[in-house]
Amino acid sequence: MIPRYSRPEMVAIWSPETRFRIWFEIEAHACDALAELGVIPKEAARTIWEKGGAAEFDVARINEIEAVTKHDVIAFLTHLAGFVGPDARFIHQGMTSSDVLDTCLAVQLTRAADLLLADIDALLAALKRRAFEHKDTVTIGRSHGIHAEPTTFGIKLAEAYAEFSRARERLVHAREDIATCAISGAVGTFANIDPYVEEHVAKKLGLKPEPVSTQVIPRDRHAMFFATLGVIASSIERLSIEIRHLQRTEVLEAEEYFSPGQKGSSAMPHKRNPVLTENLTGLARMVRAYAMPAMENVALWHERDISHSSVERMIGPDATITLDFALARLTGVIDKLLVYPQNMEKNLNKFRGLVHSQRVLLALTQAGVSREDAYRLVQRNAMKVWEEGKDFLEELLADKDVTAALSVADIREKFDLGYHTKHVDTIFRRVFGEG
Amino acid sequence: MIPRYSRPEMVAIWSPETRFRIWFEIEAHACDALAELGVIPKEAARTIWEKGGAAEFDVARINEIEAVTKHDVIAFLTHLAGFVGPDARFIHQGMTSSDVLDTCLAVQLTRAADLLLADIDALLAALKRRAFEHKDTVTIGRSHGIHAEPTTFGIKLAEAYAEFSRARERLVHAREDIATCAISGAVGTFANIDPYVEEHVAKKLGLKPEPVSTQVIPRDRHAMFFATLGVIASSIERLSIEIRHLQRTEVLEAEEYFSPGQKGSSAMPHKRNPVLTENLTGLARMVRAYAMPAMENVALWHERDISHSSVERMIGPDATITLDFALARLTGVIDKLLVYPQNMEKNLNKFRGLVHSQRVLLALTQAGVSREDAYRLVQRNAMKVWEEGKDFLEELLADKDVTAALSVADIREKFDLGYHTKHVDTIFRRVFGEG
Amino acid sequence: MIPRYSRPEMVAIWSPETRFRIWFEIEAHACDALAELGVIPKEAARTIWEKGGAAEFDVARINEIEAVTKHDVIAFLTHLAGFVGPDARFIHQGMTSSDVLDTCLAVQLTRAADLLLADIDALLAALKRRAFEHKDTVTIGRSHGIHAEPTTFGIKLAEAYAEFSRARERLVHAREDIATCAISGAVGTFANIDPYVEEHVAKKLGLKPEPVSTQVIPRDRHAMFFATLGVIASSIERLSIEIRHLQRTEVLEAEEYFSPGQKGSSAMPHKRNPVLTENLTGLARMVRAYAMPAMENVALWHERDISHSSVERMIGPDATITLDFALARLTGVIDKLLVYPQNMEKNLNKFRGLVHSQRVLLALTQAGVSREDAYRLVQRNAMKVWEEGKDFLEELLADKDVTAALSVADIREKFDLGYHTKHVDTIFRRVFGEG
Amino acid sequence: MIPRYSRPEMVAIWSPETRFRIWFEIEAHACDALAELGVIPKEAARTIWEKGGAAEFDVARINEIEAVTKHDVIAFLTHLAGFVGPDARFIHQGMTSSDVLDTCLAVQLTRAADLLLADIDALLAALKRRAFEHKDTVTIGRSHGIHAEPTTFGIKLAEAYAEFSRARERLVHAREDIATCAISGAVGTFANIDPYVEEHVAKKLGLKPEPVSTQVIPRDRHAMFFATLGVIASSIERLSIEIRHLQRTEVLEAEEYFSPGQKGSSAMPHKRNPVLTENLTGLARMVRAYAMPAMENVALWHERDISHSSVERMIGPDATITLDFALARLTGVIDKLLVYPQNMEKNLNKFRGLVHSQRVLLALTQAGVSREDAYRLVQRNAMKVWEEGKDFLEELLADKDVTAALSVADIREKFDLGYHTKHVDTIFRRVFGEG
Repeated sequence: MIPRYSRPEMVAIWSPETRFRIWFEIEAHACDALAELGVIPKEAARTIWEKGGAAEFDVARINEIEAVTKHDVIAFLTHLAGFVGPDARFIHQGMTSSDVLDTCLAVQLTRAADLLLADIDALLAALKRRAFEHKDTVTIGRSHGIHAEPTTFGIKLAEAYAEFSRARERLVHAREDIATCAISGAVGTFANIDPYVEEHVAKKLGLKPEPVSTQVIPRDRHAMFFATLGVIASSIERLSIEIRHLQRTEVLEAEEYFSPGQKGSSAMPHKRNPVLTENLTGLARMVRAYAMPAMENVALWHERDISHSSVERMIGPDATITLDFALARLTGVIDKLLVYPQNMEKNLNKFRGLVHSQRVLLALTQAGVSREDAYRLVQRNAMKVWEEGKDFLEELLADKDVTAALSVADIREKFDLGYHTKHVDTIFRRVFGEG
Repeated sequence: MIPRYSRPEMVAIWSPETRFRIWFEIEAHACDALAELGVIPKEAARTIWEKGGAAEFDVARINEIEAVTKHDVIAFLTHLAGFVGPDARFIHQGMTSSDVLDTCLAVQLTRAADLLLADIDALLAALKRRAFEHKDTVTIGRSHGIHAEPTTFGIKLAEAYAEFSRARERLVHAREDIATCAISGAVGTFANIDPYVEEHVAKKLGLKPEPVSTQVIPRDRHAMFFATLGVIASSIERLSIEIRHLQRTEVLEAEEYFSPGQKGSSAMPHKRNPVLTENLTGLARMVRAYAMPAMENVALWHERDISHSSVERMIGPDATITLDFALARLTGVIDKLLVYPQNMEKNLNKFRGLVHSQRVLLALTQAGVSREDAYRLVQRNAMKVWEEGKDFLEELLADKDVTAALSVADIREKFDLGYHTKHVDTIFRRVFGEG
Repeated sequence: MIPRYSRPEMVAIWSPETRFRIWFEIEAHACDALAELGVIPKEAARTIWEKGGAAEFDVARINEIEAVTKHDVIAFLTHLAGFVGPDARFIHQGMTSSDVLDTCLAVQLTRAADLLLADIDALLAALKRRAFEHKDTVTIGRSHGIHAEPTTFGIKLAEAYAEFSRARERLVHAREDIATCAISGAVGTFANIDPYVEEHVAKKLGLKPEPVSTQVIPRDRHAMFFATLGVIASSIERLSIEIRHLQRTEVLEAEEYFSPGQKGSSAMPHKRNPVLTENLTGLARMVRAYAMPAMENVALWHERDISHSSVERMIGPDATITLDFALARLTGVIDKLLVYPQNMEKNLNKFRGLVHSQRVLLALTQAGVSREDAYRLVQRNAMKVWEEGKDFLEELLADKDVTAALSVADIREKFDLGYHTKHVDTIFRRVFGEG
Repeated sequence: MIPRYSRPEMVAIWSPETRFRIWFEIEAHACDALAELGVIPKEAARTIWEKGGAAEFDVARINEIEAVTKHDVIAFLTHLAGFVGPDARFIHQGMTSSDVLDTCLAVQLTRAADLLLADIDALLAALKRRAFEHKDTVTIGRSHGIHAEPTTFGIKLAEAYAEFSRARERLVHAREDIATCAISGAVGTFANIDPYVEEHVAKKLGLKPEPVSTQVIPRDRHAMFFATLGVIASSIERLSIEIRHLQRTEVLEAEEYFSPGQKGSSAMPHKRNPVLTENLTGLARMVRAYAMPAMENVALWHERDISHSSVERMIGPDATITLDFALARLTGVIDKLLVYPQNMEKNLNKFRGLVHSQRVLLALTQAGVSREDAYRLVQRNAMKVWEEGKDFLEELLADKDVTAALSVADIREKFDLGYHTKHVDTIFRRVFGEG
């Protein structure tokens, strides 16, 4: 995480202050349950809520204590005891630090997931708006970077909408995967703490009890979460690369918004560069990379080791903050994207008529020409357009083998653009639903 | 994929024969729909099914044709035409090769997913059986590789069961993600083929129509699929490493089955090595690695490029065949695992009584000693056990600060193993359900 | 590895036949050294070379034996004994299977590295030839996909030449890293085998003795090797993507050779797609991915475990065969690349004169205008070219603030293309040397 | 990067203050060269050094300017102009921001590499000291986690020393790879700046001129650098995992130093956990992960895009700071490692005499028993030790097939530990040299 690529709301989730506050709440909720069970006095639980709730935790002080104990939760509990007084001895009864740390991480990751879901919703809204705006804006579809057949710019955006709808659904699954609470004590046997405590804390924090924990919440959950973020980042990369392509000087069918005062290059004042989507391409590489250590974290030794911890201290914030920033930046890019339908039309006609080659091919086969012969007929005329700049329609009309099979009117009819856009409504209905 | 780590049923999914057969079925189903729509003669569709259905596709011959056309689907269609005769010209009308290739890949991946689901079911059955067998086999739980507190070997296996239940659920999601059919023609506009054809073929093949394709099925679907396999492989690694640890000479609480005639080492005849789980550890690294290129495949250029294809030709078989093999091998390991409860007991008692330190700590705090003082009291006696081989119970009974707070009977009671296993039933109920 | 992306010479390195032959040679060379030391009879060593050298190893038979022993080296030794007779008991004295396996892998990897070095040499030759051919072919340089300033196509290829020269040097280092021989016996102490044997075998096989092995050759060596292949693959990706960009319909400055009979698309006969470089893009993703498990292989347990083995059985062939194929394919692409200087010129002039904006900026600052003002002056005229299709030179000449600082002749002089290519010779000398 | 895992000297390299200072120096050195060439006044160059050299750059102010210009180098130059006055217009003549940014990154990475080299030297010193200390401390060597044959603890550390010597050499190569300077102007043609400027700046900064740059320094250099860090991190992981294994409760042959006041567990006061090496295991995963985006950065579009930038802003600091911290932590662990030779001896004798099985095997074969029979003889006695806790020597002496081939004295001689350590000096000489 670096400030340049961060937004405050997501950053806040990962601040020490937030973390200590969540730790406190986990401990205090657990005290309530312990009091209910008669393990600790009810009054103690009340005092803990009151005094701890009012406390302002001093991060620097906690760090000092940790420098001695080399244990962060013990440092926090020591600090907390200073506020709570003698009743502090009832805190953390039968619990182990992982109960606090892992449940806290679950709270942070679910909050992060909620922000990311809101980010995706905003992106979906922008994509939908622009998709409908350009539903009928004809543009050339390209396979292999080569002109293929016409499509519409709205369909391109509908594809992105469908892709991020899937991203959303995946994130919902991934959120469920990490939304569990473990208060099961050392090695997860509940020997020193009744399972009821876990159920109570889980409920209070909007989590589910972890069915079986091993002191820690199993890390396959987190691996799945970060792998999902990596896939979402890859979808960001795809849309970003699409825009970078469209903004190429020779293509220029769309362009990132260029604000007044912005400078594209320190040396070349004429430049307007797709720097936001290039930036997103790089950020996607980062979020994707974090999936690997998350997967390597799964195989902890026996009931747990702590090798996952340093990884998560880094990728917890890094992956969620970067993805949050990237989604928001992409939403801005889509929202303000400059679209140039005239250039789309100009590009479409660059190789005059060539994009209609398939229709001619199909017409020939339907007129009884074998597939192989039809292909050869069309290809030989197409290559003249490609290599010599000829007009495809004229070449076809001059080819006797072609006119032997198709009438002039038939051939001409194959050059109608409307033919390619007749199912746009169907596609939009599939993607956006009836409404 | 290498034969050593392959099983025939999964290998068969990826054979050229299977692929060509699926290609044929996609084309033939499409012909049915086209015939229904009146685009091609009904008789032609029938002929195609009959003659193509009876054909034995010659892989070598198709490869020869491809060497000229440099296009695999065209090579196949040319070969197919030889069987079908003149009606062959009605095949592939308005379709593009991606319609065939991507839908075929969806069929192959869903079949592969079905095998993998069956593999997981077999593993779950083995885990469940062994978990119940060892539900009450007390063993030491370890955090950081260090003795922590007692648990049971059944709980260890229950954890693995819960983890692979999650793996199963994730695979079901991942299977849904790639189970779509695209017959949408060049750049996905349905210009040359009615959406009905896609719906028909999808239904026949047990797939859903892809809401919006861009000539290809979007690759975020496949990225999610392979990322999920990577997470499942990581769970395999975890259980494998657990077993490798248990088989260490100094631990020897469990051991891979060692068959008669097997040789552990060419040089040292005394060796019995956990080679299967070591092998699984390596295989897990491979399956995990394939997630990366799958994610990089997402950002195809515009409506599609073909950079994903070489990746999928490799990881399609490699990831599924390797994971299938690994799951089956792990099932065998669990099924036949030699378990040594006596060694578990011996290890548990290695540092005499030390594993009960937490209980004494809690008793002291409940008797009014502050948490910090209690920790210090327990730790100073524990270190004598650790460093000087003393007996923990004896040390505590000899420590006047301890006996000032707790009676001898109280202290003795803290050394009861049953205390740690009292919630095993709860845990099993959570993991395996009531039944 | 799949046949589609393989070349026979590299495949042969990884065949079982080659492997068994190398195993035999390691054993036989070791016997020579043992005979010299008087550990085994000299005659036995001779017999082993004679009978083993003439033997045709039967892969299927060895596999059958392995199915029982579950140990590949023992299976091989048993098979070998059948040819050698009673003297076979002198083979493998004091050695462990890793001595054979790891030294064999070193032989295979060095041979693979030699092929790859030859591949790079061929690529460098092609790049050099085409670079000199197009040394003065002016083309637009692009940053961010946006026209920047003129360069030459030869410089582009010189960059690639310099990059693959670095790739070559890295591979030489990586080859050194894995070219070691270990014949050190169980846990690497030489307890049962004199270090002289290792020295002898190393010398015979063109390797260096591993200074300290732990039964296995340390895997950081292999990690470095495969990581280096990953970096080389990334350079292949870069050049491939350059070509894919140049072949885009709107750019069309270069094109992969399109052979007679080739078909670009089953549906669209007009297509000529950069399928080879797209394919290389995908293959690069794969070779890169193999670096990860190679790095995870480093941390074997204690003196060794066998988790690295399954990984290496896969990535050993997969990475080297794929990279060999990719380098050769790229060489072919470069060799036959169709280059279109006229299109380069046409593209260069697309935004009339805009690429000279920096020169005007510099001239203004040198004429006393502040950098900020100069930037503003140039940018405002550039934007008119960009947005309204104006001619940059005309706009500048009509801008009074510009002509107040610069004479008309001065301004005109800034539009000279030769200005940009004046250091081509310097650059070529730096890259290709004086010759 | 997070403070917890950072050391100040490495952090300082990546501070904005350092960056701006390097930027200034690059610009000022370039001005000297430009003045020498007569492009700008000599006096201007002097003024720039004087006023810029004395300036305190205001990071917050530069960020504000960047918020408008959206260009960091322009923001800096604007800020710098405020200090320098009118002569500021002579700064950055003919340069592009990449000249500054990429050369700055080269300076930062070489400085980082120098710190890392010093870190490795410190680690090597610690390893050497402890290796000689324990050169003759006999311990059991383990393959597959299973007792194999005796070795010494010094040999284990010698292996680590050899491995980090290789790491050092690799880092030297990687440092060379990124130590280049590019001052070549837009698209790298030197059109607006004489190559002499690059040579001058390179010399002043201890770099080499980049033979051919494309506005940016080619990213294969950085990919190789970060891949090398990943391999080094993997070596850290290996040594860390060795220590974690040795500290396992059942093994306890070595232990991380446990400081007074340290608490191993909040719940279990008896715990002493290998938390430092577990932490290092996690950090290694992170450094390794950064190799992937670095490799993906290679394939920039045409002469450059800026997708690499966000990646490098993150992994530049993250990888070097984390690796610096990890190397230093590992050095501390080695330096203070508690070693328990008595436990090593106890473990070695756990399966009484079993570790000598190979010697007996060899003696049998040399006495004329076939390899297969000898293996069977030894294995059947070994299994009784393994399974029934028998004494290996006694079993052998009681086995008539064994005593038929070997005398009692012969058999007894095979149980001598000194046999296994006779080549320790040779190994140490190979690793540490003659001294």
